[in-house]
Amino acid sequence: MTPEAFSIEARCGRARAGRLRTAHGEVLTPAFMPVGTQGTVKAMLPEELAEIGVQIALANTYHLHLRPGEEVVRRAGGLHAFMHWPRPLLTDSGGYQVFSLQGLRKVDDDGVTFISHLDGGTRRLTPESVIRIQEALGPDIAVTLDEPVPCGAEEEQVRRAMERSREWARRGLAARGREGQLIFGIVQGGMSPLLRAESAQQTAELGPDGFCIGGLSIGEPKDLTVELTAAACDALPENHARHLMGVGYPEDILDGLRSGADLFDCVLPTRLGRNGSAVTNEGRLNLDAAQYAEDFGPIDPACDCATCRGYSRAYIRHLYKAKEILAARLVTYHNLWAYTRLMERARREILEGTFV
Amino acid sequence: MTPEAFSIEARCGRARAGRLRTAHGEVLTPAFMPVGTQGTVKAMLPEELAEIGVQIALANTYHLHLRPGEEVVRRAGGLHAFMHWPRPLLTDSGGYQVFSLQGLRKVDDDGVTFISHLDGGTRRLTPESVIRIQEALGPDIAVTLDEPVPCGAEEEQVRRAMERSREWARRGLAARGREGQLIFGIVQGGMSPLLRAESAQQTAELGPDGFCIGGLSIGEPKDLTVELTAAACDALPENHARHLMGVGYPEDILDGLRSGADLFDCVLPTRLGRNGSAVTNEGRLNLDAAQYAEDFGPIDPACDCATCRGYSRAYIRHLYKAKEILAARLVTYHNLWAYTRLMERARREILEGTFV
Repeated sequence: MTPEAFSIEARCGRARAGRLRTAHGEVLTPAFMPVGTQGTVKAMLPEELAEIGVQIALANTYHLHLRPGEEVVRRAGGLHAFMHWPRPLLTDSGGYQVFSLQGLRKVDDDGVTFISHLDGGTRRLTPESVIRIQEALGPDIAVTLDEPVPCGAEEEQVRRAMERSREWARRGLAARGREGQLIFGIVQGGMSPLLRAESAQQTAELGPDGFCIGGLSIGEPKDLTVELTAAACDALPENHARHLMGVGYPEDILDGLRSGADLFDCVLPTRLGRNGSAVTNEGRLNLDAAQYAEDFGPIDPACDCATCRGYSRAYIRHLYKAKEILAARLVTYHNLWAYTRLMERARREILEGTFV
Repeated sequence: MTPEAFSIEARCGRARAGRLRTAHGEVLTPAFMPVGTQGTVKAMLPEELAEIGVQIALANTYHLHLRPGEEVVRRAGGLHAFMHWPRPLLTDSGGYQVFSLQGLRKVDDDGVTFISHLDGGTRRLTPESVIRIQEALGPDIAVTLDEPVPCGAEEEQVRRAMERSREWARRGLAARGREGQLIFGIVQGGMSPLLRAESAQQTAELGPDGFCIGGLSIGEPKDLTVELTAAACDALPENHARHLMGVGYPEDILDGLRSGADLFDCVLPTRLGRNGSAVTNEGRLNLDAAQYAEDFGPIDPACDCATCRGYSRAYIRHLYKAKEILAARLVTYHNLWAYTRLMERARREILEGTFV
């Protein structure tokens, strides 16, 4: 446990502004982590992420374990060197991906056996092996293996998975061996505020360096996401960072922040970018629409990103219709810029005491 | 006719180093023009092209006419503004694309009727309409409509197409109306050195601002390409630029340069880039190959492009296997860098009198 990894600078209600210290530098929170599933934030150069102001990126243990394999990454000098990204990185545990493989996996108390989506081969992850894999990958923050449950699961199943996730967190933390790498434990607890609080307390007792809140934003009503996030955060120690996994749209991230979370990740800004959908202060803009065919203004007149300074809606629409890579680049860049500015604004408001 | 558009600074044999003056600045020749078929050099930002040192890019009249349409581009302020590319641009005539539509087009002395590959609608291009389209697009250099012939065409067919191309060049030049836009005529003549020379003389008599040499590198032996290029160039006036269309591999470009051509364009560096194939001083590198899985060196140790300074063969191979957009970006960037450096080196050697 590294209790000094996170410190709080200001609060507004449950929302916090803080600093997370990692081996590759400090992260000012709240912060949004773009998703680099396969060791690249889709369509972006690391230099562009830095230009946008991205402080920390996320990569997927499951995907990198299968391809190129963690030993290749280790021999490359770790994921930072492999990706050419000098700032902080978090890898998730792989649990979410494995448990999304419907019918292709079998779970027992000691781990999970699954069929690789790439080569059909049988693989197995255990609480210890996911830590070893992440030690080879070398992110600043590793995450313990967990068992998520679907949205409509019975309490019995939720409780069993939650207790298994806790035991796996214990074993993962006991297996740690890489100096300077933070390990976050994952809070589960399904759709019950009581179980969320119980999972948070139990995970906190294991002394991880921070917390992920998993298994949310999987189809439940938004009010419930907020209630469950708050229930987990209220039961977590104040002086550790909290990562609300896989959330989400800008408004969902602000809700998560209001509920006490500090870190966020989601494929949305990059996926929407590749689909020609831009995030703006006025909502989403579907650049495929005919109405933009001769709209020579920028995506967002209030935005000062490189895309909005140089390229029109009409041009981006043309690129999107013509299936040109540049469409994905320009809109992804803009979307990540919008998410990053959203987090910076929220942080400023928390520090000033005006965040609501 | 604008005879002062091009001037020669030095010669080595048939090879020339020169300067081409356009409305958007000077182009030092020899120069390679990356192909931006649909108003974007695939996977690249214009800012990256400028960083690479690209002086002039090419776009396709046929594609831009069909989508988004030249009137959209005109209303955007022209192709430079639409693409956000402030340097010189050349658009081709569309002839090559239309005549590649096997079975979808019908030619007569007044133009060519074809079926759009996008919407199946019937379209028609005439010598005058391609000039009007290019005046709306607004490149620095427009090209007259021509009729290319396949590699094995009979002399009768070659001669007829050549005479039609000359007549279309005459009509195109007579239709010109945009101040400051250069118009190049196209030399054809099939696989006969005599007809190439005749086509060159006839086209030159029409007084265009420069010349394209079309219908080569379409399957004929390389020695013949060289002979035909030299036959055309020897029959062209010295004080005009010559664009050898669609050529090619680095060694083919050097051959074209030795034969008297000044400007080159080809989809190869960008297409190879998207296919994970890198151009180096030691030949082509297929980054898909298993031998690079743990090769942590750059694509080309002798190259100082941003890709080679930051990214390994192993990482790029991983990105390519994972079908990540960044693979196309990194290799395309490197390939265009290699082509641009090749031209700069050749120019330097011609100026120094050491080019062979």
